[in-house]
Amino acid sequence: MDIQRSPLARPFPELPSIAGVTLRVARAQYKTWDRCDLTFAELAEGTSVAGVFTKSACASSEVELGREAVKQGRARALIVNAGNSNAFTGWRGREAVEAIQAQVSAALGCGVDEVFVSSTGVIGVPLPKDKARAGIEAALVTEPCGWADATNAIGTTDTFAKGAGASAMIGDTRVELAGIIKGSGMIAPDMATMLGYIFTDANVAPAFLQEALERANAATFSCITVDGDTSTSDTVMVFATAKAGNARIESWDSPGADAFAAALADVCRQLAQLVVRDGEGAAKFITIRVSGAASDDSARRVGLSIANSPLVKTAIAGEDANWGRVVMAVGKAGEPADRDKLSIAFGGVWAARNGLPVEGYDEAPVAAHLKGEDIDIAVDLGLGDGRATVWTCDLTHGYIAINADYRS
Amino acid sequence: MDIQRSPLARPFPELPSIAGVTLRVARAQYKTWDRCDLTFAELAEGTSVAGVFTKSACASSEVELGREAVKQGRARALIVNAGNSNAFTGWRGREAVEAIQAQVSAALGCGVDEVFVSSTGVIGVPLPKDKARAGIEAALVTEPCGWADATNAIGTTDTFAKGAGASAMIGDTRVELAGIIKGSGMIAPDMATMLGYIFTDANVAPAFLQEALERANAATFSCITVDGDTSTSDTVMVFATAKAGNARIESWDSPGADAFAAALADVCRQLAQLVVRDGEGAAKFITIRVSGAASDDSARRVGLSIANSPLVKTAIAGEDANWGRVVMAVGKAGEPADRDKLSIAFGGVWAARNGLPVEGYDEAPVAAHLKGEDIDIAVDLGLGDGRATVWTCDLTHGYIAINADYRS
Repeated sequence: MDIQRSPLARPFPELPSIAGVTLRVARAQYKTWDRCDLTFAELAEGTSVAGVFTKSACASSEVELGREAVKQGRARALIVNAGNSNAFTGWRGREAVEAIQAQVSAALGCGVDEVFVSSTGVIGVPLPKDKARAGIEAALVTEPCGWADATNAIGTTDTFAKGAGASAMIGDTRVELAGIIKGSGMIAPDMATMLGYIFTDANVAPAFLQEALERANAATFSCITVDGDTSTSDTVMVFATAKAGNARIESWDSPGADAFAAALADVCRQLAQLVVRDGEGAAKFITIRVSGAASDDSARRVGLSIANSPLVKTAIAGEDANWGRVVMAVGKAGEPADRDKLSIAFGGVWAARNGLPVEGYDEAPVAAHLKGEDIDIAVDLGLGDGRATVWTCDLTHGYIAINADYRS
Repeated sequence: MDIQRSPLARPFPELPSIAGVTLRVARAQYKTWDRCDLTFAELAEGTSVAGVFTKSACASSEVELGREAVKQGRARALIVNAGNSNAFTGWRGREAVEAIQAQVSAALGCGVDEVFVSSTGVIGVPLPKDKARAGIEAALVTEPCGWADATNAIGTTDTFAKGAGASAMIGDTRVELAGIIKGSGMIAPDMATMLGYIFTDANVAPAFLQEALERANAATFSCITVDGDTSTSDTVMVFATAKAGNARIESWDSPGADAFAAALADVCRQLAQLVVRDGEGAAKFITIRVSGAASDDSARRVGLSIANSPLVKTAIAGEDANWGRVVMAVGKAGEPADRDKLSIAFGGVWAARNGLPVEGYDEAPVAAHLKGEDIDIAVDLGLGDGRATVWTCDLTHGYIAINADYRS
């Protein structure tokens, strides 16, 4: 099947090369296709690593091993396999990951736990070890490539390549961040795996890097949804090579810590929004701002309840300012809410205030707003200071076409 | 818009009349349509009542008042308004319900808290008190009607009338149960309100009736889903007129208590399944049996995670035995699960066992099963004795067409 490029696509940005990061791609041919499907990022000695992983109880071996290895804080290599997720393959899947780690650690002279592996694609089929081995051998001797090639190689059903960059000043030193991500196109029997990698030349202690990533993740990747389904392989990692030569960031008290964390969160937010923009069948990009909640976490859950509601998503697809469905989604979220304090706006115009429709509110600007591509929904719960912003896309015939009409 | 009759529809059954229940319908004309939209069930003195209501934090005044009134255990009347849900209408909505209660209690000479009101339809518009008053006046003097007329009068976007019956022996006395329900068709800006009412001539104490209803509800109405969205008005009530003359059922130790509870659960299960069969755009009826869970409740949550997954629902629509999506939905449920103990079957054929695909499993009977109308998915978690059965429908273009393509 031909999946059309998302109408919400963005061009791939100019990204700086990151000192200490060497990218290479190769053809492992995990599927019968003519494209690079193995990505190999070699990282300089002294690279710090941090990662966040899927909460799925059925996570892949790649996730299980990566979650453990990230604790020691150092990385020398990242390998991403596209076309086979290696998920739900038991001990044979684990063997395949361990074979890759052994091969790469021998080639680079590093520990096996400094080699990180991700895989995305068909599930239930163990990753073929011979194809992986040949692919890595080829990658070890091939010419380095740029961000666009690496991004295309990690993609599966993505309709456009997704990358984002940022920079920050740490004292007098400028550090660069570059991130790439794949995710949100799915074809049976593949899953919506989201894999994101951010590279920086900043000198950052692993513990701080992990804390900054978790904080950024909570406000970005944890605030997007396409269909509420969670992959067994979702992974976001950040690698810091220390090549920029800044004074090492050890804690939030270190000079430049806030600036670095802000730049990291900026890249995470850009990448997260790009995943939504490639959501299956997406025709509208929806921003949901929740305020007045009992806590920030409660606001996020209310926002995700709205963002995951098929009735809200289809209403937006139909360009219908159906605030009743937003009331419904707030009510079912299981979070503190008071019907008679609830206010709802579309495109900045309040349709309901304090539990009552706004009589004679001007529907014309709302209707015009809903015809656009970027939709803004604001919900005020009137209870406390908690707030969150969540991003999603609409639910269209395109989603059904991609996931039901075409067979694997 | 014309919504086609669901391909999963069932004919309306023959239901016995229930002594002590008098049904009447009238034209309140809550919308500009030519049909009865007010249903009035008059109940004999001595009728016990029980009810379960939506857990929405934004519930309607009907739900708020009903939830309180049911505690005193007696009922003399039920009024159902179709075409206006009276939800999200603040104090004016509450006034409308209280006006109906006052009018009916005066006519019947009963307490206002013995008059139960439900409403379904457009939200954000207070129920017009004059139309309700005139409708009730008409209903008070019109000829009684049968189950089919009452069922049609409570419906909104339902594509077929849904009813179910059962009987039970209590000692030597045969008691009858008859239930009607509306739900699961939705058109913007209406919501998928499910309203169900069961009537019986059995003599049952209110406390036992409530307990039996809650127990039945947990295994029936709480185990169905169309799209995971929860109405602000969902209500299921049971009325027991005591006209059969059986020895009063006071507790689980009373003779016939188990038989009555089983018959009540039977009616609930039939009605719940009929709601799924009228799910928007439904083309397949899906039964999900979860076993081996840590507890029954955990099994139900895993089942609902599968049943609510858009990826699973679209796979079934596409007649694709995509067990990888079932793995994903188990993993994201937030319940105890072990990837390497998980087994999945379609139509009785195991596709995956103990965390691994079944090599060379016979796909032919599975493919044939998926082409049918009734789909069976079995999931064994391999952990404990917890089990549950959940029912849902597939996710098709019909759902998008009903909820996005047509505007309110």
